[in-house]
Amino acid sequence: MNVSTNAMAALAGSPEQSELARHVADTMAALTKIYDRGYFLTCWREQRFEAELWSRMGELGLFSVGVPEEQGGMGGGLAGMVQVLDGLSSAGLPTMLYSLTCFSRTPILRHGTPEQIERFVKPTMSGEKKIAFAITEPDAGTNTFRIATKATPHKGGWRLNGAKVFTSAANHAELMMVIARTRPYTPGASRREGISVFVIDTNHPGVQMTPLNIELYSPEQQFQVFFNDVDVGPEALIGPEGQGMETMFDALNPERLLSAVLCIGVGDFALAKTIDYVKQRAPFGRPIGAYQGVQHPMARAKAHLDAARLMTYYSAHAFDAGGNVAATANMAKYLGAQASVEAVDAAIQFHGGYGFDADYDVITLWPIVRLFKVAPLNDEMILNYIGEHVLGLPKSY
Amino acid sequence: MNVSTNAMAALAGSPEQSELARHVADTMAALTKIYDRGYFLTCWREQRFEAELWSRMGELGLFSVGVPEEQGGMGGGLAGMVQVLDGLSSAGLPTMLYSLTCFSRTPILRHGTPEQIERFVKPTMSGEKKIAFAITEPDAGTNTFRIATKATPHKGGWRLNGAKVFTSAANHAELMMVIARTRPYTPGASRREGISVFVIDTNHPGVQMTPLNIELYSPEQQFQVFFNDVDVGPEALIGPEGQGMETMFDALNPERLLSAVLCIGVGDFALAKTIDYVKQRAPFGRPIGAYQGVQHPMARAKAHLDAARLMTYYSAHAFDAGGNVAATANMAKYLGAQASVEAVDAAIQFHGGYGFDADYDVITLWPIVRLFKVAPLNDEMILNYIGEHVLGLPKSY
Amino acid sequence: MNVSTNAMAALAGSPEQSELARHVADTMAALTKIYDRGYFLTCWREQRFEAELWSRMGELGLFSVGVPEEQGGMGGGLAGMVQVLDGLSSAGLPTMLYSLTCFSRTPILRHGTPEQIERFVKPTMSGEKKIAFAITEPDAGTNTFRIATKATPHKGGWRLNGAKVFTSAANHAELMMVIARTRPYTPGASRREGISVFVIDTNHPGVQMTPLNIELYSPEQQFQVFFNDVDVGPEALIGPEGQGMETMFDALNPERLLSAVLCIGVGDFALAKTIDYVKQRAPFGRPIGAYQGVQHPMARAKAHLDAARLMTYYSAHAFDAGGNVAATANMAKYLGAQASVEAVDAAIQFHGGYGFDADYDVITLWPIVRLFKVAPLNDEMILNYIGEHVLGLPKSY
Amino acid sequence: MNVSTNAMAALAGSPEQSELARHVADTMAALTKIYDRGYFLTCWREQRFEAELWSRMGELGLFSVGVPEEQGGMGGGLAGMVQVLDGLSSAGLPTMLYSLTCFSRTPILRHGTPEQIERFVKPTMSGEKKIAFAITEPDAGTNTFRIATKATPHKGGWRLNGAKVFTSAANHAELMMVIARTRPYTPGASRREGISVFVIDTNHPGVQMTPLNIELYSPEQQFQVFFNDVDVGPEALIGPEGQGMETMFDALNPERLLSAVLCIGVGDFALAKTIDYVKQRAPFGRPIGAYQGVQHPMARAKAHLDAARLMTYYSAHAFDAGGNVAATANMAKYLGAQASVEAVDAAIQFHGGYGFDADYDVITLWPIVRLFKVAPLNDEMILNYIGEHVLGLPKSY
Repeated sequence: MNVSTNAMAALAGSPEQSELARHVADTMAALTKIYDRGYFLTCWREQRFEAELWSRMGELGLFSVGVPEEQGGMGGGLAGMVQVLDGLSSAGLPTMLYSLTCFSRTPILRHGTPEQIERFVKPTMSGEKKIAFAITEPDAGTNTFRIATKATPHKGGWRLNGAKVFTSAANHAELMMVIARTRPYTPGASRREGISVFVIDTNHPGVQMTPLNIELYSPEQQFQVFFNDVDVGPEALIGPEGQGMETMFDALNPERLLSAVLCIGVGDFALAKTIDYVKQRAPFGRPIGAYQGVQHPMARAKAHLDAARLMTYYSAHAFDAGGNVAATANMAKYLGAQASVEAVDAAIQFHGGYGFDADYDVITLWPIVRLFKVAPLNDEMILNYIGEHVLGLPKSY
Repeated sequence: MNVSTNAMAALAGSPEQSELARHVADTMAALTKIYDRGYFLTCWREQRFEAELWSRMGELGLFSVGVPEEQGGMGGGLAGMVQVLDGLSSAGLPTMLYSLTCFSRTPILRHGTPEQIERFVKPTMSGEKKIAFAITEPDAGTNTFRIATKATPHKGGWRLNGAKVFTSAANHAELMMVIARTRPYTPGASRREGISVFVIDTNHPGVQMTPLNIELYSPEQQFQVFFNDVDVGPEALIGPEGQGMETMFDALNPERLLSAVLCIGVGDFALAKTIDYVKQRAPFGRPIGAYQGVQHPMARAKAHLDAARLMTYYSAHAFDAGGNVAATANMAKYLGAQASVEAVDAAIQFHGGYGFDADYDVITLWPIVRLFKVAPLNDEMILNYIGEHVLGLPKSY
Repeated sequence: MNVSTNAMAALAGSPEQSELARHVADTMAALTKIYDRGYFLTCWREQRFEAELWSRMGELGLFSVGVPEEQGGMGGGLAGMVQVLDGLSSAGLPTMLYSLTCFSRTPILRHGTPEQIERFVKPTMSGEKKIAFAITEPDAGTNTFRIATKATPHKGGWRLNGAKVFTSAANHAELMMVIARTRPYTPGASRREGISVFVIDTNHPGVQMTPLNIELYSPEQQFQVFFNDVDVGPEALIGPEGQGMETMFDALNPERLLSAVLCIGVGDFALAKTIDYVKQRAPFGRPIGAYQGVQHPMARAKAHLDAARLMTYYSAHAFDAGGNVAATANMAKYLGAQASVEAVDAAIQFHGGYGFDADYDVITLWPIVRLFKVAPLNDEMILNYIGEHVLGLPKSY
Repeated sequence: MNVSTNAMAALAGSPEQSELARHVADTMAALTKIYDRGYFLTCWREQRFEAELWSRMGELGLFSVGVPEEQGGMGGGLAGMVQVLDGLSSAGLPTMLYSLTCFSRTPILRHGTPEQIERFVKPTMSGEKKIAFAITEPDAGTNTFRIATKATPHKGGWRLNGAKVFTSAANHAELMMVIARTRPYTPGASRREGISVFVIDTNHPGVQMTPLNIELYSPEQQFQVFFNDVDVGPEALIGPEGQGMETMFDALNPERLLSAVLCIGVGDFALAKTIDYVKQRAPFGRPIGAYQGVQHPMARAKAHLDAARLMTYYSAHAFDAGGNVAATANMAKYLGAQASVEAVDAAIQFHGGYGFDADYDVITLWPIVRLFKVAPLNDEMILNYIGEHVLGLPKSY
């Protein structure tokens, strides 16, 4: 029903990659028969980590997809991780922690020392450790350059102080990538100077977290995170001090693509569920799925989902090939969130009143896709990006 | 900020009506300073009826707005009730029970005997009693003609058996208007034959109710209601037996208009809240409300809200003047739900991540407006109505 | 099929007005049976003025609708003129010259001397004279304050020099209202100071005009107009010198409302034509009008047209009652243009390839409605107006 | 500015293909500097074939792109032809005749005999001959199975009789592919039985054509074509008699993809033109391109164009690899037409009144993109296809 496997094959570029793509597709299909939407909702209701799923994914080697073979992984790049997440979310398991861990480890693989890869990436390949990502701050919002969390040199390492907000799954992660300033922003200097990227342990006593009142019907919650004299060693700094923009964007572009496919998957899951419903619901005798007023919005959503999916896989492959994917990764996230909201909205509409009953598990799909129109980067900032950097128009803000 | 008071004045048609409109506007403004959104949310959190608000509305005579002066009311018609609800919901109190009581008593005023008015309407004028409305059934959905709840003659009165779903606020209401069949649907006969309208006591032992798992962030919940040998007297039947279509539509058209204004009010409340936010939020130095990417969607939503509001008031006046308002009442509900979803969606988007945090009370405005695209009649059925009955196109379903 | 007559009756406010509304409705219905869409297209093809229609309208007294009885007219105000134009455009005759003449004479009626009314308005009541309106300039665009056409005192009167663009029907009009500066814009002074309103004869030797290459499938073309030492007497100045903003807006607000109804009428004409087509077109055996994919877009367009129409009539009545209608007149124009483009777009789509064949007269309806999303004020400026003046947001441009 | 070259490289699958893609990109860029939009408009004004462009394309070997090397071509497949047309239309030359010739020769390459390839395809590789495509009939519309044009055996060959409509560029083409029935549709039999594909000479005396009144601002007009005893030899039949569905769809799927890219290119051309304009237009002092009300709609259109383009290239490669591309080719055409209408609509809107002046060449871009929402297959039929064949919903028409 979707273009992902074909797209992978067409885009893969080498027989080995094609073969891995097929292997991942098969594995995910089998896995999500066991750990399905019901399992995900159980974990949500019990507000607990999806430990069994995670454990099984580790056994199946799925966490080593995306880690180069020379570093002990199965290869497959970002495209491979996108495909794994597509498998999860298309089955109704939009697992943010998988996304977070994958995009956070990407800059470590690209910019880290062998020791840092050993320390921070290796444990993610078994599933033993997960990585949260702390970037957004209350006052800075989408303006990353204004962040105030600071890291100052301390006993050969660093001391972090500050606060972050909208940090997903912080309580389930053992590690946390933190964007901080190692030099304050000084007027006149480039705003980009002074940004650095760290990885810390979440169980450090100086790290505290408070859940936000955000209901995503997901086992993963959102947190405010506070850093009070979080002292870390020198190995916590990934890439060069104060020049962390490139490092950071090697997390942010994968984040956009993994976010895109997380949405798109949920969109397809919502459509599949609705297809079942509208084929049997028939208050006037004919299944409502035979009415174009029902069928056309679903078909439109499907076309938009597939277009967004293709843009996502294409960008992931381009990222793996070393390309600059800022434009298409932003577009993919924008289109993916849009299309999945469209799909879930159709699902709600065509389930009628039942669309609002959480027991029917339709309304429960909405917040997590709608969120991605504001996170990790809101639609407006993406349009600003395209306007300025793709179309060459003057800055508007 | 909105056209309601002006619209009332322009549409009122007589100085007396204009004066009442101004009185209602002033009263509502003062009332909702005391019983505000915070009060509404408190009642929601405590899952209790808005008793203090209700009591004060009774003291202020607001429940007698809409009841003709010759029946002891203040007059003002449906338009007056629409205005009262506009005042409530524009202040963040989308009180479905007010809507339910008002539209349910309208057919009693039009088709009931003096005794029925005394018995069922009078107690609503003091606020002593509220009326729920039970029409939708699981299998029939939007096809009212297929309802299976039946009322059979029993000891000079009627015995009701059946089940309803999506009955709002059933637990807070003392009375319930029930649409039932007094004659089974027989092929060949008009589908309309056999529909009758009843009013029963909700504390009758044969009435049972189960809440649905629908979260509207409202003190009023949704219920499944079961009728098991609910025996009532002959006075429970409103209007002629088996010919209840006209009676029923004198509830349904007001329901559409009160639903419309309930949405529209929430839309304006959401905009007002967002205006405050975007005037101070300034991650890049300038308030985001000064960006057209933020300002234009809000302006568009406002234009759509005001157009829907005007259609609503216009239809209410036309209803009061005895006109057939089926077309414009349907349009008003359709446009009102659409515009309010647009407004609340903008509110969510421009609050960024906070738009999803229930403590910020933005996401909490979404379900109740989104619901009105499927209830009381879904958008698709409204478009079918317009297609067939306004445009004269062939039936499509 | 539309709400106009009912809306007029409901909004009219007095029995006399209601009666006039009915008279106008009847007259227009009869008139457009004779002078119909075919007549309009003939005038377009021959690129000539609709002289026979105009002459008949004069005989029927239709040009005196909107002129107060004390000035020899039939009364009915702007609402009456809106209704006349609704009658024309709903029949497929979107006659801009009627709109231009009506909104241009309105500020003369409000701000002119008795002599000016005698000289400029009276001849429009018989149909003997028409008035064009020259405001937009190439560099100023929507920024009226930047206009450079100037009027300087000359021999007790005024001498005009400058150039205008997008002046409709200039070649068919005997008179032209011209917005000019009598004082240059000086930094520091209010931008509004120095604007004045004139009426001149189009056959003045200093007036030259060049048609633009704009195809609206209308007898009325667009022109660039040049003023070279156009000397006029003191009576050419309407209202106070240099304080012409209020005068000007008594033309601009009616212009928005007449533009709105011109669009809306064409939208209804397009729907009516499409209804006929989709009821008989049946490539798969069933009329395509029975498919919701065809029926729903038409029904949506109809709801939007009627909401825009109601906003238009409401604003016209409010204008006649002396109200400030800037907000709702802008909304009405915005919504009217939007809805009519939606209707004509549906008409094109559902006529398939024939929708593009000018002989089928569907594509020919598009430019004139689409134009009203940029004229007389573009959508973006209207949203800016609502944002700033209705919502109270900061200026965005 | 667009993803095409990158997409080609990523999707190409072999170094040879990548190299050809780069060669085509360079060649097209150079070619359209000489034969540019001005040239295209000149041909349109003079209503003549783009002979010089065609001749130069032949010299450059561009017509042999898409013909396999073993048949004397340069290879590159449908993807190559898509890229050539992208180059043309992105430069403002939406040359339908290139599209028509390319998709019409595709089934000949796949199903024709060596003699037929020699006779019908070879002359297209030099540019000596062009092929028109005659399928749609007045009564059948989108229901191809209802076509009435018939071919009956005649003297060892065939005799064609019937009529077609909306046949593009018929007067400029030397050859014409004609879909005809060799067996009448008989109730009970499969509707697909009896369809056959022919290629005839347009200068056959039995072929007559009448132009339709459709203005696309293109050198290529639309025609009604009549076949009166058009006698042809046995070599005119491509593929098996009466089983022509597969043959036909090897034209129709390429047609959808070439149509998609024709639109998308024009969309990009419109955006590029508008970018230039909004960077200098500044009625309020700041370029209007710096306002988000202008910038965001253009950015959205760009995202949609690129997504549609990616879907188009992806499907073309899949077609070349022997895949079944019906679903994604339909989606690509749907998305491409949608996105290009969005882009051209933005271009019109942001040029203000000038957007309607043909001399500014903006309005002139609209009909050709808008047409592709109804042709070659209308949006509604595409949504029906996706609904039924991708989502598995019941047939709705």
